[in-house]
Amino acid sequence: MAARPRLYPQFATHNALTVASVIEDAGGVEGYEFQRLHGMGEALYQALMVEEPQLTCRVYAPVGGHANLLAYLVRRLLENGANSSFVSVAADPMVPIATLLRRPQSWIAEPAAARHPHIPLPRDLFAPRRNSAGVEFGDSAALTALRAEIAAAPSHTKASPLIDGSAVAGRARRVISPIDGKPTGVVEEGDAAIVGAAMSAAQAGFLAWEAAPLATRAAALERAGDLIEQNRGRLIALLQSEGGKTLDDCIAEVREAADFCRYYAAEARRIFVPRVLPGPTGESNELRYRGRGVFVCISPWNFPLAIFTGQVTAALAAGNAVVAKPAEQTPLIAFETVRLLHVAGVPASALHLVPGDGRVGALLTTDKRVAGVAFTGSTEVARVINRVLAGKDAAIAPLIAETGGINGMIVDATALPEQVTDDVMISAFRSAGQRCSALRLLCLQDDIAEQVLTMVEGATHELKLGDPRDPATHVGPVIDGEAKERLERWIADMEARGAARFRYEAGRLPAGTYVAPAIVELDRARELKEEVFGPVLHVMRWRPDELDQLCDDIAANGTALTLSIHTRIDATVARILARLSHGNVYVNRNMIGAVVGSQPFGGSGLSGTGPKTGGPHYLIRFALEQVVTVNTAASGGDATLLSDEET
Amino acid sequence: MAARPRLYPQFATHNALTVASVIEDAGGVEGYEFQRLHGMGEALYQALMVEEPQLTCRVYAPVGGHANLLAYLVRRLLENGANSSFVSVAADPMVPIATLLRRPQSWIAEPAAARHPHIPLPRDLFAPRRNSAGVEFGDSAALTALRAEIAAAPSHTKASPLIDGSAVAGRARRVISPIDGKPTGVVEEGDAAIVGAAMSAAQAGFLAWEAAPLATRAAALERAGDLIEQNRGRLIALLQSEGGKTLDDCIAEVREAADFCRYYAAEARRIFVPRVLPGPTGESNELRYRGRGVFVCISPWNFPLAIFTGQVTAALAAGNAVVAKPAEQTPLIAFETVRLLHVAGVPASALHLVPGDGRVGALLTTDKRVAGVAFTGSTEVARVINRVLAGKDAAIAPLIAETGGINGMIVDATALPEQVTDDVMISAFRSAGQRCSALRLLCLQDDIAEQVLTMVEGATHELKLGDPRDPATHVGPVIDGEAKERLERWIADMEARGAARFRYEAGRLPAGTYVAPAIVELDRARELKEEVFGPVLHVMRWRPDELDQLCDDIAANGTALTLSIHTRIDATVARILARLSHGNVYVNRNMIGAVVGSQPFGGSGLSGTGPKTGGPHYLIRFALEQVVTVNTAASGGDATLLSDEET
Repeated sequence: MAARPRLYPQFATHNALTVASVIEDAGGVEGYEFQRLHGMGEALYQALMVEEPQLTCRVYAPVGGHANLLAYLVRRLLENGANSSFVSVAADPMVPIATLLRRPQSWIAEPAAARHPHIPLPRDLFAPRRNSAGVEFGDSAALTALRAEIAAAPSHTKASPLIDGSAVAGRARRVISPIDGKPTGVVEEGDAAIVGAAMSAAQAGFLAWEAAPLATRAAALERAGDLIEQNRGRLIALLQSEGGKTLDDCIAEVREAADFCRYYAAEARRIFVPRVLPGPTGESNELRYRGRGVFVCISPWNFPLAIFTGQVTAALAAGNAVVAKPAEQTPLIAFETVRLLHVAGVPASALHLVPGDGRVGALLTTDKRVAGVAFTGSTEVARVINRVLAGKDAAIAPLIAETGGINGMIVDATALPEQVTDDVMISAFRSAGQRCSALRLLCLQDDIAEQVLTMVEGATHELKLGDPRDPATHVGPVIDGEAKERLERWIADMEARGAARFRYEAGRLPAGTYVAPAIVELDRARELKEEVFGPVLHVMRWRPDELDQLCDDIAANGTALTLSIHTRIDATVARILARLSHGNVYVNRNMIGAVVGSQPFGGSGLSGTGPKTGGPHYLIRFALEQVVTVNTAASGGDATLLSDEET
Repeated sequence: MAARPRLYPQFATHNALTVASVIEDAGGVEGYEFQRLHGMGEALYQALMVEEPQLTCRVYAPVGGHANLLAYLVRRLLENGANSSFVSVAADPMVPIATLLRRPQSWIAEPAAARHPHIPLPRDLFAPRRNSAGVEFGDSAALTALRAEIAAAPSHTKASPLIDGSAVAGRARRVISPIDGKPTGVVEEGDAAIVGAAMSAAQAGFLAWEAAPLATRAAALERAGDLIEQNRGRLIALLQSEGGKTLDDCIAEVREAADFCRYYAAEARRIFVPRVLPGPTGESNELRYRGRGVFVCISPWNFPLAIFTGQVTAALAAGNAVVAKPAEQTPLIAFETVRLLHVAGVPASALHLVPGDGRVGALLTTDKRVAGVAFTGSTEVARVINRVLAGKDAAIAPLIAETGGINGMIVDATALPEQVTDDVMISAFRSAGQRCSALRLLCLQDDIAEQVLTMVEGATHELKLGDPRDPATHVGPVIDGEAKERLERWIADMEARGAARFRYEAGRLPAGTYVAPAIVELDRARELKEEVFGPVLHVMRWRPDELDQLCDDIAANGTALTLSIHTRIDATVARILARLSHGNVYVNRNMIGAVVGSQPFGGSGLSGTGPKTGGPHYLIRFALEQVVTVNTAASGGDATLLSDEET
């Protein structure tokens, strides 16, 4: 106001109190204007103009096509139709004027009063389980503190096999950072002798851990969740240096790991309590839960903290001993995590670590003492493990496999293009496309395809590719040279076929394994037959009469992990889901970042065996059931009958 | 009383009212006697003798060893220590004499009043699920009605492949009855073409059945339970003619089949309701359950109705289509059961039948369209199926296998020999030992071994072996000539080794496949390495300091199905269970006859994969999980916030 006339203030409002306040603050009605929407606020401004002929009020009206105006209209309807809206109460003779004039400060005096009593704080979303803590990057103090913790972590670390808590010497190998191609640590890897020793130690440690009270096991996992959050700096430093992850991905991964610890602890307390079963008097029947023995947990490099922790804590929660093998690319953070779990109270005899490549995995899974395997990785390796397990002349061991998917996003003409674009960018390019949930195949209804693709290309152009330690970076490196080579070969093939539509132009980059995001256009959904694990988005177009066929084409690849549907029509969602049984379906949303307890994760078909991680049916698959039936009448009669008064 | 003096009545009582009633009824105190236990009722009879010097009262005292007297003493303590005991209240000055003299009729006037309000009727044991109806053989009217229903069943039946409800012609084969070796029906068996057609039909039928409302699916299964009970006559006739089962086994099997239908219907209603998961405002997360596709159910001959029905109804309850293959020995009852399920409302397109031998099973399991397999049978066949499934380049399909066990009963010196003997007889010889839960290895503490074995031999001698249609028969035939031959060879081997201890002497028998029960004595538990599937009981002795070793020997055979423990010491039970994770443990009880919902059934290790049939975790293994996440804020805001008043 004070800058008038160099600035010309404009106030768009239909609220009488706001209008009065502006006039009061301005000390009159000159040097600025009000605005009202055509068809609204007419009575208010007509009355004002009578009293203040100098007052200026511009009448405005939105202009555009139906596609834009529909959303605008809905927003207006929701706002003005709300019971709390000034527009809705101003004309109600039952509402006293004093109520209309009440200033917001009077009832939003302090933050405590401003809180809606039915909306929990983030940390209480899953109460009584504590939700993990996020970091608001817009809060510079929080971001600075976080970066200081990361910077304080050691720059070079070492991992070794851990048997009964002791580091065992193995053949040493340098761990190379995908960020700059330089060594970031050393790993000593397992061999047949070390695998054998780890399995023996785990088998010996099993009985004591299984016999430990449920509350002791759960408490150790809860402490592990706390330790993971407290040590986020060290963990993020490793996630970045050996995993090449961006800062937001690192925060999400630390949170997921802590959530897994607390969720499985809570689930163990819920499920593994002996359950009294009904039956006739004179006998008691109790369903008890036991560990299966030694679980082998084989985890991938793309969530080297979260998936590693999830597998291990689930197996431990059910009373199993564990031998864990991290991905060969990411042993350092696995070593750190096992150390934290031991500090948290998981006995060193119950959790052992053997770093190494697929040969170590093969040694572990062929061992006769394996009671079960939790595996996350490729469909091919899951199949090999399954055959190895089936080939043994031993008990049929459970294999809990979570593998990849050729994940589609189906967008119809009713979708909001801006929302689609945002969700495509996050789904296809966040984590450099290296999530099993990532969008691989964008299926656009032809009417809107070109419009959406133009927006997606524009947004892709705006991405920042580079060193993931810079908080401004959107896309970091892919995991290693082999992955980069495979992706570049795929993109080159697509270019040769004339299918490449767009390639991000990378500027000067560090000497790491970076792949510039690409967009490839295909004719049919069936053309995409493999999971291209990186920042490559495939798109295709479909006609409205082809929706069922499109679903069948998507189903035909055999994977069924994640699926996104963008439409405003519920019947379209139902129609698609009648044909597609993908494990995780996201409607009008991006398709990554499944949250423990909210979005239990995992698919079917070639995408995995189930049950879903972070869901209510996961832990039971790690456990044995035992029913103990006692003839209570055998000791002279059912004494409870004597005490059971007839009241 | 009226028969005095030809009969000499004797009344043993310490109850003043009873004494008074007897004297009143007798019209005096002569020609009969009272009896009292030494140390009890002294004041009562002393007072009486003063008034009635002619009254005779014999004082008796139990005489015997501690082993017998301890149980007697405990019974007396429980009886007399009960609050409701006359002995306990007679000396209490607070209890008015009128209360002491109240006649039982006055408060047990009618059956309704006699019922304890906290003890449910048998049919309500599992309320709201209805328990199946039993038959009291001591009630001759009930037994006569049952036998009439059985007699009314057709004497010769036919089974065929059923595809979409239509009988398909296959190669015909006679079904031979184990009772007399005579044909009892004809079965047409499947081949590659029929298997292919059944799988195609099931795949086509899957979508509609999966899409059917949960309530519709559950209601069809509940009707099937009712139909099975209503058609018990026909079903029992088949269980007897092709299965060779005794009448009590048939009743139990019909009940179990009906229980499975109702239990899985109730479980489906409990589990498969979409579950809302917690999360932040602005999105909804729902865990839904779907069928997996076509389930292949392969069932055994030893429970050709109950296990067949259990597998099929579980798969159907979860929304799968089913192709069922019954055992080659028992196709007739499977055909009848499928017919009943169709009548109950399971669409003919959702449930198909292909009779045949292992070759048909192999054709079914190798089919690429198999979404899962439920199998009950031998460990060897389960392993073959597992390898066939793993060998396919397809999704990893769940195998729910329930196989056999070398089941032990551990008896220590504190056990009650009479109870042990009863439970050994039922566990080892009922159903001619042809239950996977049956006792194979009786492990007796050496101090009591000879005493118990003498009783077991005596009881075995008293068994009636013969035509199972006679209600007096305890042991019927084994399933076929091959089984008889294998068992006789085993027993002959044991005789040759000098291990045979006792053989039942069979009299004249029908021309069926009967095997006389045998008892074999071994030195060590480890000597029994295979499941001898018939009426052969192996026994061994152990010293008190060998209990842990005995448990390890039992564990060493790799099976872990049923286990019975006879002891009066809870710590012994705990000690054994710390080492043995058998699926079903029975304390001071027989080890067969697991009841749906009370004793979920199934083992671990070489005995099966779990989850337990008839238990709370079974159905979920047949289903897929699907999480649907909806961005509810995408349609203009989270409308629930507007309606969520701050109250």
